[in-house]
Amino acid sequence: MKDPADFTPVCPLPASGGGKVQLAHGSGGALTHRLIEEMFLPAFENPFLAARHDGAVIGIDTARLAFTTDSYVVKPWAFPGGDIGALAVIGTVNDLAMCGARPLYLSAGLILEEGFALADLARVVASMKAAAAAAGVHIVTGDTKVVDKGSGDSIFINTSGIGQIAAGTEVGPGSIRPGDTILLSGDIGRHGMAVMAAREGLELETLIESDMAPLCAPIMALIEAGVELHCLRDLTRGGLATALVEIAQATGLGIAMSEGAVPVTEPVRGIAEILGLDPLYVANEGRFIAFVPPDQRALALEVMARDPLCRGACAIGQVGAQGPGIVTAATSIGGQRVLDMLSGEQLPRIC
Amino acid sequence: MKDPADFTPVCPLPASGGGKVQLAHGSGGALTHRLIEEMFLPAFENPFLAARHDGAVIGIDTARLAFTTDSYVVKPWAFPGGDIGALAVIGTVNDLAMCGARPLYLSAGLILEEGFALADLARVVASMKAAAAAAGVHIVTGDTKVVDKGSGDSIFINTSGIGQIAAGTEVGPGSIRPGDTILLSGDIGRHGMAVMAAREGLELETLIESDMAPLCAPIMALIEAGVELHCLRDLTRGGLATALVEIAQATGLGIAMSEGAVPVTEPVRGIAEILGLDPLYVANEGRFIAFVPPDQRALALEVMARDPLCRGACAIGQVGAQGPGIVTAATSIGGQRVLDMLSGEQLPRIC
Repeated sequence: MKDPADFTPVCPLPASGGGKVQLAHGSGGALTHRLIEEMFLPAFENPFLAARHDGAVIGIDTARLAFTTDSYVVKPWAFPGGDIGALAVIGTVNDLAMCGARPLYLSAGLILEEGFALADLARVVASMKAAAAAAGVHIVTGDTKVVDKGSGDSIFINTSGIGQIAAGTEVGPGSIRPGDTILLSGDIGRHGMAVMAAREGLELETLIESDMAPLCAPIMALIEAGVELHCLRDLTRGGLATALVEIAQATGLGIAMSEGAVPVTEPVRGIAEILGLDPLYVANEGRFIAFVPPDQRALALEVMARDPLCRGACAIGQVGAQGPGIVTAATSIGGQRVLDMLSGEQLPRIC
Repeated sequence: MKDPADFTPVCPLPASGGGKVQLAHGSGGALTHRLIEEMFLPAFENPFLAARHDGAVIGIDTARLAFTTDSYVVKPWAFPGGDIGALAVIGTVNDLAMCGARPLYLSAGLILEEGFALADLARVVASMKAAAAAAGVHIVTGDTKVVDKGSGDSIFINTSGIGQIAAGTEVGPGSIRPGDTILLSGDIGRHGMAVMAAREGLELETLIESDMAPLCAPIMALIEAGVELHCLRDLTRGGLATALVEIAQATGLGIAMSEGAVPVTEPVRGIAEILGLDPLYVANEGRFIAFVPPDQRALALEVMARDPLCRGACAIGQVGAQGPGIVTAATSIGGQRVLDMLSGEQLPRIC
């Protein structure tokens, strides 16, 4: 290779943060988006990235595939309701499902810190196995690296996934139309609150467990029932609010949603208040939103009602006309607020 | 999810190392193989992993695809001849090429340490862009995580890749036959020595640059010339010796090679002696071995001679009859030694 020092960097540098990577660059909020817009998209310019979807849609021969990747750095690596192994499988399976794809094959890349207990590694691997079985995917290729003590943090896992997109399915921000109804698959905030409570060592009256679950079954059920799915998005880093803002910005369409319609359990509401967090921005690992034409709303909710993973599914808003791509939330006390991406870091290392 | 604490771990635990992950678990040597054999293969049991190849070969519709993943944790992240960005693209492209596949699409998962300079990130991204262009692949999906200062080490990158396997190509350990000639694509040891010299701050009379280069062009040239490729392997972690031992063990066939036939440059030989390292075990990022039938040897070497990336290509040994799957090296002083996998850690964090 030519010495890369000879290459002139092609990307403008985000000026904020004194030229250093900040935790918020990884939060999924405004700084993450600046990094993507100002550095990654200009460098890797191609139509797959430009679609701004949870995964890339690629065609090889007759196959239409979804391809996605995520690294998992959750801290602590075990929390009520799961651990990093299950999360690494489920998170990537869900990104494939959000492309309207049936998840098929995963890769697993482990970065272990020297000194991590082999018994803990075995537990993580067992969780990956169980989660892969639950989601119906095979882990077909892998890699393990070890870094010296103090150069990592117990265990990081990257999984990449390949799924097959059903013929005729066109799920993505580009398919959203004015008037679409936005459905939410259930209560929000449990994953983020479970991890935060574990990290802070909070003693809670009611244990909050992560909502982590593979979402391929309910998504496939919607597709098989013939529901016209315009867009799907799981509500991970940055939560429901960030997902809606991303989609409003990507489509240039306004979104109106009702805060009061969004289910939040009492324990989540309570700990969010204690920690000063807004549940709309808290990560989930088993929740999604679906954009469907208004005449498909009843059918979609009927299909979702059959799956325990979609308990509490409901309509929370709709897509407005062409206009400023902003999200307006009707608050529960009768007011209105514009939802924005978080500019700082609400919950670092939540996934 | 069910609490993974409820899952009984399915994997026996390697007993060595006091039950802790050691650096050598990531070296590609004997401990890495124990981890794979005793923990990962039993857990993720499937025919794709069982093939023990650089990537999995999967079929979707009419497409035959190679799918592979690698995490890169090289230290320092920049070294003579390249940096972690170029390495992350090239390493994965080469794993696809070793499956006999034309590399098409890559994912990129970045784990950044808080405080990493954005200018350095831009340099890494520019290197990824240049390497992807050189290899003819698109980076189509990505993810960025940030960990708090002290929980990572500047930058780690995972790339996963998808390639398409040409019809009729069956490259893998299972295709190796007794009598096959083993071709080596050029001199060995430069990547590992370049990284080690940079890490140790050695002042060398002759600068050693990494041999890092995408190998898809020479591999595709061999395929297009009709060379019957039985197996390909790039010589990364653990170097030439480990690649040969892996293949001997996987096939149960003996391998005889000649140390004197293996090209090693004087600067590499010199620094290897200073550091007490055996070049046969030192990592390369632009070198491969090819197993071909003896009557294809001349054609293969002729095709390789046309590509500057294969300067110095030569035959280094051959596959023996069924028998103990061991590698015997004829030493340059007329003796013989059996090559083994390294049991410890020769070069941590070399890729």
